[in-house]
Amino acid sequence: MNVQEYMIELGENARAAARLVAKADTRLKNQALLAMADAIDSSRPELHAANAIDLDNGRNNGLDSAMLDRLELTDARIDTMIEGLRQVATLPDPVGAINDLKYLPSGIQVGKMRVPLGVIGIIYESRPNVTVEAASLCLKSGNATILRGGSEAINSNQAVARCIKQGLKVAGLPENAVQVVETTDREAVGQMITMPEYVDVIVPRGGKGLIERVSRDAKVAVIKHLDGICHVYIDDQADAGKAVNVALNAKTHRYGTCNTMETLLVHSDIAPELLSELSERYQAAGVELRGCERTRALLPLINKATEADWETEYLAPILSIKLVDSMDEAIAHINRYGSHHTDSIITENYTKSRAFLREVDSSSVMVNASTRFADGFEYGLGAEIGISTDKIHARGPVGLNGLTSEKYVVLGDGHIRQ
Amino acid sequence: MNVQEYMIELGENARAAARLVAKADTRLKNQALLAMADAIDSSRPELHAANAIDLDNGRNNGLDSAMLDRLELTDARIDTMIEGLRQVATLPDPVGAINDLKYLPSGIQVGKMRVPLGVIGIIYESRPNVTVEAASLCLKSGNATILRGGSEAINSNQAVARCIKQGLKVAGLPENAVQVVETTDREAVGQMITMPEYVDVIVPRGGKGLIERVSRDAKVAVIKHLDGICHVYIDDQADAGKAVNVALNAKTHRYGTCNTMETLLVHSDIAPELLSELSERYQAAGVELRGCERTRALLPLINKATEADWETEYLAPILSIKLVDSMDEAIAHINRYGSHHTDSIITENYTKSRAFLREVDSSSVMVNASTRFADGFEYGLGAEIGISTDKIHARGPVGLNGLTSEKYVVLGDGHIRQ
Repeated sequence: MNVQEYMIELGENARAAARLVAKADTRLKNQALLAMADAIDSSRPELHAANAIDLDNGRNNGLDSAMLDRLELTDARIDTMIEGLRQVATLPDPVGAINDLKYLPSGIQVGKMRVPLGVIGIIYESRPNVTVEAASLCLKSGNATILRGGSEAINSNQAVARCIKQGLKVAGLPENAVQVVETTDREAVGQMITMPEYVDVIVPRGGKGLIERVSRDAKVAVIKHLDGICHVYIDDQADAGKAVNVALNAKTHRYGTCNTMETLLVHSDIAPELLSELSERYQAAGVELRGCERTRALLPLINKATEADWETEYLAPILSIKLVDSMDEAIAHINRYGSHHTDSIITENYTKSRAFLREVDSSSVMVNASTRFADGFEYGLGAEIGISTDKIHARGPVGLNGLTSEKYVVLGDGHIRQ
Repeated sequence: MNVQEYMIELGENARAAARLVAKADTRLKNQALLAMADAIDSSRPELHAANAIDLDNGRNNGLDSAMLDRLELTDARIDTMIEGLRQVATLPDPVGAINDLKYLPSGIQVGKMRVPLGVIGIIYESRPNVTVEAASLCLKSGNATILRGGSEAINSNQAVARCIKQGLKVAGLPENAVQVVETTDREAVGQMITMPEYVDVIVPRGGKGLIERVSRDAKVAVIKHLDGICHVYIDDQADAGKAVNVALNAKTHRYGTCNTMETLLVHSDIAPELLSELSERYQAAGVELRGCERTRALLPLINKATEADWETEYLAPILSIKLVDSMDEAIAHINRYGSHHTDSIITENYTKSRAFLREVDSSSVMVNASTRFADGFEYGLGAEIGISTDKIHARGPVGLNGLTSEKYVVLGDGHIRQ
């Protein structure tokens, strides 16, 4: 069997399993999730053994230390996987929820029922814990999943997959509800993203190269985010204390996350008051500053920001700073150079807060809050499969609802159309 | 300027206009819609003159009478266009609506704000009234539109476009918020569906060939429905009166619409009681019946249904009938042969009504109601841009909300992430 035939077989299996998990009781799905957690807990030796093979291979293949770190399944990470499964079991089941059911003039009653999307393909890189996160969210939302992890994690992912299948079996759910691709052939990805008859949505989780490739070639919908070029704009009517706190938190809380601020916009009237304190505190935290000319007039020792800086997601302790003369100029900069991910204004002005919320075209728009809050857990979704910077289907952090669709339900008493 | 350059120019114009209409007041959008209605009303001579050219050309080019009929702009159709515009002006503005705003444990307040998608491309065939319908719904939902009508309606569409631009001008909105493609070159469509930097969503309205081509080649999201293979299933616990009324209405109310029933499924226990009456009434209405073998045992004079009948959208006074021995068999038939559009069960049984609603995988699922109700107006959406049989983004009749997306808004008081 070649790769194409193999993927089609997985697709057929997934399609058949999807029909069964779509109508599975909440109780059975939760039972499966808890049984997966138990299976992972009791399979620690097997998980460590499989992971050790991947780590050995990784070292022999010259993976860098960051990759090896992401690949490692420590006991703490296994604990997190177990906790995540138990957490997803406690989330409300989105499937079958009926909203907005109302009577209409014809006498029929019309509402919307939340239903699974069907089969979700997940493509990800080294971290084996994604296998559990993605499988659990897809199962809870009534979808079947085909998971394609990185070749460097193949043994770890297969070991995790055995625990997942064990959990499905305990609950009497079809084991094909979650399938982990067993080949490391790269053609498997190409096949998976071009078989709309078997896969309804693709969620790529990984580097920009992977996401660009998947988006370009996919023949099915893709829930993705490419860049996180996030901004904080400090308005001339900002509270100075809030401005400094938020601007520091948005940059320094974590450097490698997509909701970290990459460019700070400061109103020119408030800049003289704030920039020297901010600069000291950023430099104390080890953040390299790069400023526009007017910023450098106030902070002569920092580096110069070029046009390229406004378009760069550093994912590193680097921050570009630009002075603007109005909120409108800030919004124009954000809408032009940002990645429509997350942007925040710091202001005490009511009218400007409303205008900023409305006019900034990003998946999360904030007032007086750190961009670091853009996250499924912080938003109360319980968990997230990813963050979407697209506008179609789901935007921002994607939780269980983002893995479902709504169909119309119509209730009548023999009603006919006149 | 070649076609590609021309379409890119329209795209750039649309993108610039989209930013302005996205933040336009409800009042201005409504003013534009009402002014468009007035402009159409006072431009009847120009509309008739332009339409006469298209009709002449159509006759000379051998268009069939159905096409010529769809192309004709009668005064009654102009009245309907005017009424439609005034109706859209009365609909609530979806843009900026904030839902589910709630406090979270961190202290931030998180909600979702409805925002326009951006630029919507509409590709349609002969009916010039689509120009007005599509433009008005896209404008009200804060989107810019590029409209590509059929070449046979080019003069009518341009005349309508002048009225639309007049209305935009009266309200001080950018005239490029609605652009009608002026070339009849087919390459314009190819270009429009492959420029994601300028167009966010494509809505094809027309025959299956058009929709298949657009879906296959598009590089942006497509809101579409392909087929309407709709079913009514008469359960053994159906009320006979309701069953006959709904089954007749679903087939005979209109033959050419996508929500018309094409296959009737009847439980074998109730078939002897109902089929002869139904058969008489269908035949009185001029409907040709095609039955499975067991149906023909009860109605020996009707034609035989082949496998192909179960997969056919007749759009004509033809109905296929199949006997089944259980609701599960009916659901399996619907999910296999249907087009996931609209399907209805007739039953008095509570448990079966719930199971049917949950298990049938269609954009509208009904109990004791005619499939003909699947329609944006009947569902209280006010209007519809089309019906989606996809699961991604919008499913079923697509109204103003389907032309928007939701972004997250976060309100804080200087909150930072711990």
